[in-house]
Amino acid sequence: MRIAISEYEQRCNILIDRMNANQLSGVVLFDSYYILYYIGFSFIPTERPIVFLLSSKGSKTLLVPRLELEHAQSNALVDKVEYYIEYPYELHPMKKLTQLMIEMDIRPPFGADHDGYPWILGYRGQSFSKLFGLPPQFICDWIEDQMMIKSQAEITLIKESVKWANLAHMLLQRYTKVGLTETEVSFRASMEATLAMLDTIGPIYRAQSPFSSGASAGYRGQIGRNAAIPHSLANNITFQPQDVLVSGASAPVWGYNSELERTMFLGQAKDDRREMFEHMVALQETAFQAIKPGRTCAEVDRDVRNYYLKNDLMKYWKHHTGHAIGLRYHEGPFLDIGDTTVIEPGMVFTVEPGLYNLGVGGFRHSDTVLVTDQGNELLTYYPRDLASLTI
Amino acid sequence: MRIAISEYEQRCNILIDRMNANQLSGVVLFDSYYILYYIGFSFIPTERPIVFLLSSKGSKTLLVPRLELEHAQSNALVDKVEYYIEYPYELHPMKKLTQLMIEMDIRPPFGADHDGYPWILGYRGQSFSKLFGLPPQFICDWIEDQMMIKSQAEITLIKESVKWANLAHMLLQRYTKVGLTETEVSFRASMEATLAMLDTIGPIYRAQSPFSSGASAGYRGQIGRNAAIPHSLANNITFQPQDVLVSGASAPVWGYNSELERTMFLGQAKDDRREMFEHMVALQETAFQAIKPGRTCAEVDRDVRNYYLKNDLMKYWKHHTGHAIGLRYHEGPFLDIGDTTVIEPGMVFTVEPGLYNLGVGGFRHSDTVLVTDQGNELLTYYPRDLASLTI
Repeated sequence: MRIAISEYEQRCNILIDRMNANQLSGVVLFDSYYILYYIGFSFIPTERPIVFLLSSKGSKTLLVPRLELEHAQSNALVDKVEYYIEYPYELHPMKKLTQLMIEMDIRPPFGADHDGYPWILGYRGQSFSKLFGLPPQFICDWIEDQMMIKSQAEITLIKESVKWANLAHMLLQRYTKVGLTETEVSFRASMEATLAMLDTIGPIYRAQSPFSSGASAGYRGQIGRNAAIPHSLANNITFQPQDVLVSGASAPVWGYNSELERTMFLGQAKDDRREMFEHMVALQETAFQAIKPGRTCAEVDRDVRNYYLKNDLMKYWKHHTGHAIGLRYHEGPFLDIGDTTVIEPGMVFTVEPGLYNLGVGGFRHSDTVLVTDQGNELLTYYPRDLASLTI
Repeated sequence: MRIAISEYEQRCNILIDRMNANQLSGVVLFDSYYILYYIGFSFIPTERPIVFLLSSKGSKTLLVPRLELEHAQSNALVDKVEYYIEYPYELHPMKKLTQLMIEMDIRPPFGADHDGYPWILGYRGQSFSKLFGLPPQFICDWIEDQMMIKSQAEITLIKESVKWANLAHMLLQRYTKVGLTETEVSFRASMEATLAMLDTIGPIYRAQSPFSSGASAGYRGQIGRNAAIPHSLANNITFQPQDVLVSGASAPVWGYNSELERTMFLGQAKDDRREMFEHMVALQETAFQAIKPGRTCAEVDRDVRNYYLKNDLMKYWKHHTGHAIGLRYHEGPFLDIGDTTVIEPGMVFTVEPGLYNLGVGGFRHSDTVLVTDQGNELLTYYPRDLASLTI
């Protein structure tokens, strides 16, 4: 089920071609998602830099701390894994990195995703600008463009993620009851879905995600009035009668994500809430109609905004229609009036226009859709209607 | 239990004094941990920039996307929360940011932690270098220096974290049995510890962490021979007789972390393992003896390395003695021969020298210690001896 070695090689070759077309001697990448994308090596970034070097001639080296050597050797699709002893150590990892660059003939002009390793978790070190007297060429846009179009193998993994998110959400809905708290319900649903997933896929399963190692579902505090605050942080709220709930479920599968969010009701929804719910579903339908190859992301969001405007809903608007999803739980392009990217087959988007009424609650479904030659395919299959989502 | 408003103000004042001493007009911060440190606002970084602006005159503004407005208004300790509509939108957030900088009289020379918002999760935008023709002054080192010394309130939160990590670990050890898998045991221990913590602290509890919203304990795949691979990713291994296990437990408490790791045995350890275990405990003891104010981090790691050398253990060495811990699960300074930082009261370190023998297993405890006026205080109180850690 995982990505084939040949696909990783193809990904690198596309980057190599672009380097050569731009007379770069190589690229140096620090971003953990980029490294996962090109060489299949997953890790959680720390103060110890992990660096992928790719020369325009095609040689591939991964630089890791001693600590990660065996882990990298058995997982990273590179010619050579090199290591530095430790960070900070007496010889700074940037020294080892610049030595490797010389050996691999990577010299200005070269490409990079950062001007040296970013200062995270206490890391301190020199930038390329300081070391070479000029910054590298930033090539994140090349990589972002490349990652936008998903291959068949990537789509298969996203579909697998959809499946296990569906199970986690099914259990979340089943266990949610007045008087229980979000934390216990979320833990129970996530645990059972994860164990089922692990038993089904078997020991080959790899999450390859910094955030989770199984299926999960929860409410992240979006309960009752707090449901009007997206990204509100979970707070162990106890479910009350008449609560409006906004859920979220996902499952990383070899690094790939999907998104499933539902607006649910504890008890029969009152008229004002029912009305908001129906508008929200109609907003989503508008987006499903709008997403097709050849149109721009901006046009999709414009169509959706027109529905808000026509129905006097802009006062409940808080964010654009959706975003692409893949190795990152958010990525470009964005279904946003400011993003003029032309939609192409193989792009995968979340569709999640929302309505947020501070007195009443929040209303948002999020579904994952794949752009096809004709239009789009809804990958998420969890019910979207009011009756199915009333607890 | 949380950090007092006056303490956040003091933190900002220290940064303002340093700005003024260096003739900076202000600072612009993007790092989510820095923002949490200065204004108590916790969020998970996405492609939508969240930016804290602090002028040398002391005015404080937080810039957020529309989506986060209410969340920020009720949590961020700033004079003003400003918002941009959306990312990317038709007017790029960097436009709004530079407008705010002009209004707040923040102009070159100013300080920042990044040269513009880092390109993460599909974000694309201009650097300050491009916008102003020169880079900002990087002031991460000022902030890192400031965050190194913990206040009484911070130490209280770290101690609270130690407590709930202890519970999670206690349950992890209790539930670990031959034939069960690491995932079910880890989920069960983490769930029960989290529910107990939430019931004990009550609804005021805030995790303020991007990685977890409760207590957790697990093995992250460091089971049997895999225990020789630190940071190996969890793999749902089934426990076998004679497994060597390396565990990890923590609990974010208003953003603050602690670290508790233990080497455990399923069944009586054989002689070769017992010997490794006793050496590992002695390595830790060496560090506990070495950590005191006035000595350097490098000297502590040197003392520990001398134990490795004397006992012919360098072949099992993989990493330095430890790291500081606080709002980040790793931070500086590092107990590493390359870090000449002088140890001061109020620093909090993990102490975790390890032995990794690929054929036999990994051996590492990690304890959290506070530097005191006289020496250090072990905050972790989970048993460290072989008998207590044999299952």
